Amino acid sequence: MSLRHHPFDPLTSSEIRQAADILRRYVPGTDIHFRVITLWEPPKSEMVPFLEMEHGGSETAKTPARMARVQAYVDSTFTEYKVNLDQQAVVAEETLHGRHAHIDGEYMRKVELACMADPRVKEQVAALNLPEGSTVVVEPWTYGPDGMNDMSKRMTMCWFYMRLSDDKDANYYAYPLELCVEVSDDLKVVKILHLPSGEHDRVRTEGNPKEFDRRKIHEGSEYYPTLNTKQRTTTKPYHVSQPEGPSFSIEGNKITWEKWTMRVGFNYREGMTLHDVRFDDRSLYYRLSLAEMFVPYGDPRTPYPRKAAFDLGNDGAGVCANNLQLGCDCLGHIKYFDGWLVSRDGTPLKMPHVICCHEIDDGILWKHTNPRTGNAAVARSRVLVLQTIITASNYEYVFCFYFGQDASLHYEVRATGILSTAPADFSSPAPLPYGTTVAPGVLAPFHQHLFCLRIDPAVDGYRANSLLVEESHPLPPSAADNPHGVGYVTRQTYVEHETGLDLDHTTNRVFKIVNERRHHPVARTPVGVRLLPCYSQLLLAHPDSLHARRSEFGAHAVWVTRHADDEAFPAGRFTMQSAGGEGIASWIRKRRERRRGEEVGGSSSNREGRGNEKKGGKEGNVVEEEDDTCVRNADIVVWHTFGSTHNPRVEDWPIMPAEKMVVGLKPVNFFERNPALDVPPSTQERNLSVLVETGGGVGEERKEEKEAECCVERFRGR
Amino acid sequence: MSLRHHPFDPLTSSEIRQAADILRRYVPGTDIHFRVITLWEPPKSEMVPFLEMEHGGSETAKTPARMARVQAYVDSTFTEYKVNLDQQAVVAEETLHGRHAHIDGEYMRKVELACMADPRVKEQVAALNLPEGSTVVVEPWTYGPDGMNDMSKRMTMCWFYMRLSDDKDANYYAYPLELCVEVSDDLKVVKILHLPSGEHDRVRTEGNPKEFDRRKIHEGSEYYPTLNTKQRTTTKPYHVSQPEGPSFSIEGNKITWEKWTMRVGFNYREGMTLHDVRFDDRSLYYRLSLAEMFVPYGDPRTPYPRKAAFDLGNDGAGVCANNLQLGCDCLGHIKYFDGWLVSRDGTPLKMPHVICCHEIDDGILWKHTNPRTGNAAVARSRVLVLQTIITASNYEYVFCFYFGQDASLHYEVRATGILSTAPADFSSPAPLPYGTTVAPGVLAPFHQHLFCLRIDPAVDGYRANSLLVEESHPLPPSAADNPHGVGYVTRQTYVEHETGLDLDHTTNRVFKIVNERRHHPVARTPVGVRLLPCYSQLLLAHPDSLHARRSEFGAHAVWVTRHADDEAFPAGRFTMQSAGGEGIASWIRKRRERRRGEEVGGSSSNREGRGNEKKGGKEGNVVEEEDDTCVRNADIVVWHTFGSTHNPRVEDWPIMPAEKMVVGLKPVNFFERNPALDVPPSTQERNLSVLVETGGGVGEERKEEKEAECCVERFRGR
Repeated sequence: MSLRHHPFDPLTSSEIRQAADILRRYVPGTDIHFRVITLWEPPKSEMVPFLEMEHGGSETAKTPARMARVQAYVDSTFTEYKVNLDQQAVVAEETLHGRHAHIDGEYMRKVELACMADPRVKEQVAALNLPEGSTVVVEPWTYGPDGMNDMSKRMTMCWFYMRLSDDKDANYYAYPLELCVEVSDDLKVVKILHLPSGEHDRVRTEGNPKEFDRRKIHEGSEYYPTLNTKQRTTTKPYHVSQPEGPSFSIEGNKITWEKWTMRVGFNYREGMTLHDVRFDDRSLYYRLSLAEMFVPYGDPRTPYPRKAAFDLGNDGAGVCANNLQLGCDCLGHIKYFDGWLVSRDGTPLKMPHVICCHEIDDGILWKHTNPRTGNAAVARSRVLVLQTIITASNYEYVFCFYFGQDASLHYEVRATGILSTAPADFSSPAPLPYGTTVAPGVLAPFHQHLFCLRIDPAVDGYRANSLLVEESHPLPPSAADNPHGVGYVTRQTYVEHETGLDLDHTTNRVFKIVNERRHHPVARTPVGVRLLPCYSQLLLAHPDSLHARRSEFGAHAVWVTRHADDEAFPAGRFTMQSAGGEGIASWIRKRRERRRGEEVGGSSSNREGRGNEKKGGKEGNVVEEEDDTCVRNADIVVWHTFGSTHNPRVEDWPIMPAEKMVVGLKPVNFFERNPALDVPPSTQERNLSVLVETGGGVGEERKEEKEAECCVERFRGR
Repeated sequence: MSLRHHPFDPLTSSEIRQAADILRRYVPGTDIHFRVITLWEPPKSEMVPFLEMEHGGSETAKTPARMARVQAYVDSTFTEYKVNLDQQAVVAEETLHGRHAHIDGEYMRKVELACMADPRVKEQVAALNLPEGSTVVVEPWTYGPDGMNDMSKRMTMCWFYMRLSDDKDANYYAYPLELCVEVSDDLKVVKILHLPSGEHDRVRTEGNPKEFDRRKIHEGSEYYPTLNTKQRTTTKPYHVSQPEGPSFSIEGNKITWEKWTMRVGFNYREGMTLHDVRFDDRSLYYRLSLAEMFVPYGDPRTPYPRKAAFDLGNDGAGVCANNLQLGCDCLGHIKYFDGWLVSRDGTPLKMPHVICCHEIDDGILWKHTNPRTGNAAVARSRVLVLQTIITASNYEYVFCFYFGQDASLHYEVRATGILSTAPADFSSPAPLPYGTTVAPGVLAPFHQHLFCLRIDPAVDGYRANSLLVEESHPLPPSAADNPHGVGYVTRQTYVEHETGLDLDHTTNRVFKIVNERRHHPVARTPVGVRLLPCYSQLLLAHPDSLHARRSEFGAHAVWVTRHADDEAFPAGRFTMQSAGGEGIASWIRKRRERRRGEEVGGSSSNREGRGNEKKGGKEGNVVEEEDDTCVRNADIVVWHTFGSTHNPRVEDWPIMPAEKMVVGLKPVNFFERNPALDVPPSTQERNLSVLVETGGGVGEERKEEKEAECCVERFRGR
């Protein structure tokens, strides 16, 4: 089946142009400031039949229409349009009163200039009495609502830093200043704050800031190579070569590698997305994406609680995606994917090399030595990596999907970049309790990074999956059934209704996404995949706080919901200065409440989701299910919240060694056997390793025993 | 300082010979069956001054004597000797009544033959009515005590399997038989058991076993390449080359790499050990080793509880160490270390290539792009790997230490190999609750793998460290101190006395090993390292069970004890058929009880370990401390128990894709800044990556926007 575009293909530059033109014709004579033109993904109700047809299902299905999601300020009114590119028409529009678009780089630049140009700000800067030759750097941040301002208007916080070097790449985070300025939507300086810099300080708005304490001037906080000249020379070059080329093949956005097939997507908000992920021609995942992340700072002193960033919803992982460089960000044989965004005037904006695709060797995949023969069978693990890197102001995040030959899949986040810093008094009696002092007068405040991975499963079919929670529990000692007190069994519980759940390693709690309609012929359990969670502390902010209300996904580690086309973002569609109450917990609560209402009204059919099973035989389209709180044999989405409570180390300064967080997904009684059983054995003939002769051995003098004999000796009869 | 042998060097083959000769002269005219000749590591009280001198401390210290630990059956009496190689004399001996040496391959072979030769066994095998051309395979296992036999005599369990192919590498675990035989120390068949194969079956000792059910005969359970001919051809070759050679240098057993130095050791029991691990000439760890592992099976039906293996204490990680092959087990530029054991007659036994040392590329180490200039600084992560692989009967374990350029250290276990199987009735109504049916009639029982990593720290000095438990907790909302309800702080608690502790991700509980006598100049906290634990379920067996008493380390995730030279093994010195009560919990209990006794007797000084602090100034040798239950400012050892509750997947059959378990150690406010700050930036010039041109991009048509502009566009003013 060949198409000009696959329905999952992101919009091309020409489609972006078309969409812009269609909107211009639709609202002639208006001033249009484009913010978003991206693929409006087809409804799942259309995609499922399409994919079933694409993969050889008998039915015929129509190809979903190409739709664009356009967000623009039209004569200053923020509006979202649904544009049908096939019909060349706007088919729907929504005025977004009181909403704010994602961050606008050009506007932020204006904020910075307006702030610096304000005479009162100039006075205040002068009052700081900064060192000769220093340069003030203003970093505008989106405003994390703290209930102290009206959020219906855009508000920006300007945090002040300084660099002592003329070099624009000098690390200004090494000199956080005590000034902070609120700038209004219309670029007016609303308020000038003097930041608290001692434990019991309070923010001040009167008088002058303290003078800059010159004892804070220090060395060793530069990270940029030209400024950080002490470089080790001990690391020898390391090259990866694939004489026959990579093992993957690429058609458009479709990647085929070692029994895996998947389609790569990219958008302004989520950055890299994966679609229709299959192994050995069986479906596993309809869609995989990082759906949101929240970075709240833990320093309670006003105005620090305003540091609370939704790096996807506010900044956009696509907008912040790095242009990956060959040999720097990626080693080996690298395939790059470009992405496309839109400029404010509607012209397509190319994002070069936002995703890289390559292979790595991951050591031993499987091995066994037969003790009787001394014969070893060993296979090495080859892994496919899809990497994207974003820069969200001071921080970098490296997002990678790792695909294994054994049908395992891992999602890894690496946090790096530079800590966001705050001023601390040079001579405070004790370290401040809200962070780590990483350099003289430089506080790196405690904060959290909470990520939410959205898993839209298609376990052996696109229509109906269930979430099974399994725990391992000891059997009670009993003369008859557990005479030695060592027995244990598993307990399985199906989740019946939408909810949030937590991790428990003490019971080996395992979350399995299964297809109850497909039982494994040998194991006789439903086929499934297992989540390997990342054990993390959840949101520390008080449940009643704005932080908690805005980042509902941070309340539980695992969530399961019914699939809904418009529920992609677990903190809500619009996070910029949001008031909260529109996230995943609210979706669930609203459906539950409506459901209760209906039941009171009498229609309590299908209460336990059993109805699905009846329909199981003919795989009824779950979109038609009555109980939209039921997640049993339904079109479900599983969400995993994970991250880190990042109480900085001095070792994270001045640039942070990547901190890894890893989530896994593995098949469980899905395949007939080890899906990597057919990986050929690893041989020196193919791998061409090099023996390093240097130095001695653990036992120095060499003897003449034949090695083969040793093996046999070692293994005989074991 | 140059020595013939460093005190941490394992015994060389000639030293092993000497030790054997010394013992022969010491017990002339006896029949000696050697089991162990290995380095008797010098007492820490001698090593600490030696190391302080070695690393430029002013004091002079004498080089500890070369001592050998010899275990042998002398005229059938199991005895341990301490042999002084400098004095050429036995300086101590201990008769080990009621103890058993680690597993003896030659003896196990005899057990197997004796079992097969027994006429009653032959009858029983005949009664199974096995298929034409099948071969019975007997796998002798050490006996996991279940209270049903006298353990003072060696007892072996023979488990029966069958292979249908003539090929000795055929996977006999695919046909577990219902026979099981107990063999006595003097090679007599004591009891013949018919294994339970249905949920409510009981073991039988009378009559004949059920006939073999031919419906169990199946395909697809072979893993050995010559028998498993379906092999994928899609995986292209992947080569690693280091034109200037590796970045490490090796002198004897000392490895120097990227600011790290360490000494590699190897012995019959622990396999690979690491000693005097330092970074940038500051000490971090005195000794790192896997100290024990326990693999209890969870099937409660007699005799399955006897499957309970201490793969270090019973089998020996050194004894089971694989002869690693270039290009198979290791890819790249590989340095191998050999090890030496002893044969029963006292001749040295070479263990070739038991440890491999090489480098890998681990992706992004750190990165930041300055949003104002669009200039990126990125360094790639090079990692040093020390790998050893053991074969413990059916299972393989890959043990790796990973050293990072940022002074982080990770210890990884990969479990692979073949599941130990048990017979299941072909036509049982439901799957058995004690395992997973992985092939027709083949039950892979539930079991646990519990590992104990022993961390003997030397955080910025060899003498006195403390264990600090830190948690992150929300501040209570308060108008004055936490007006927005988003603040949080950390709580620190020093562990004062020896104990076992557990993990808690919900409070972000962090275990830090710190040196309270060395404060970080900027952060003003004690310098330390942090444990990154592996969240695992602990031992499921009932606390009163023999399993629990024998594997005391399985009761808690983190243990802290006072260092004692003879406390290296947390399940006790001798685990073979052990009765328990000699492990880490017992050490702690006994010292506590004695301490309480002393206190009642009046000497309650130093109760809270404060005495140590008083001595802090002159770094008193902690061995002299009075309170030997105190772990504050003391010579402590930290133990981490982790592993997996392995409820097998069909995908683990017939050979298991490696399951990874990872533990980390990272500096926390130890260094002045990121210790990898001086890693040179990653450049294509050095990395020589290759651009793959195949296929399209996420947005197909290419446009002419200049990429540099995009970056600026993207980053400007953010």
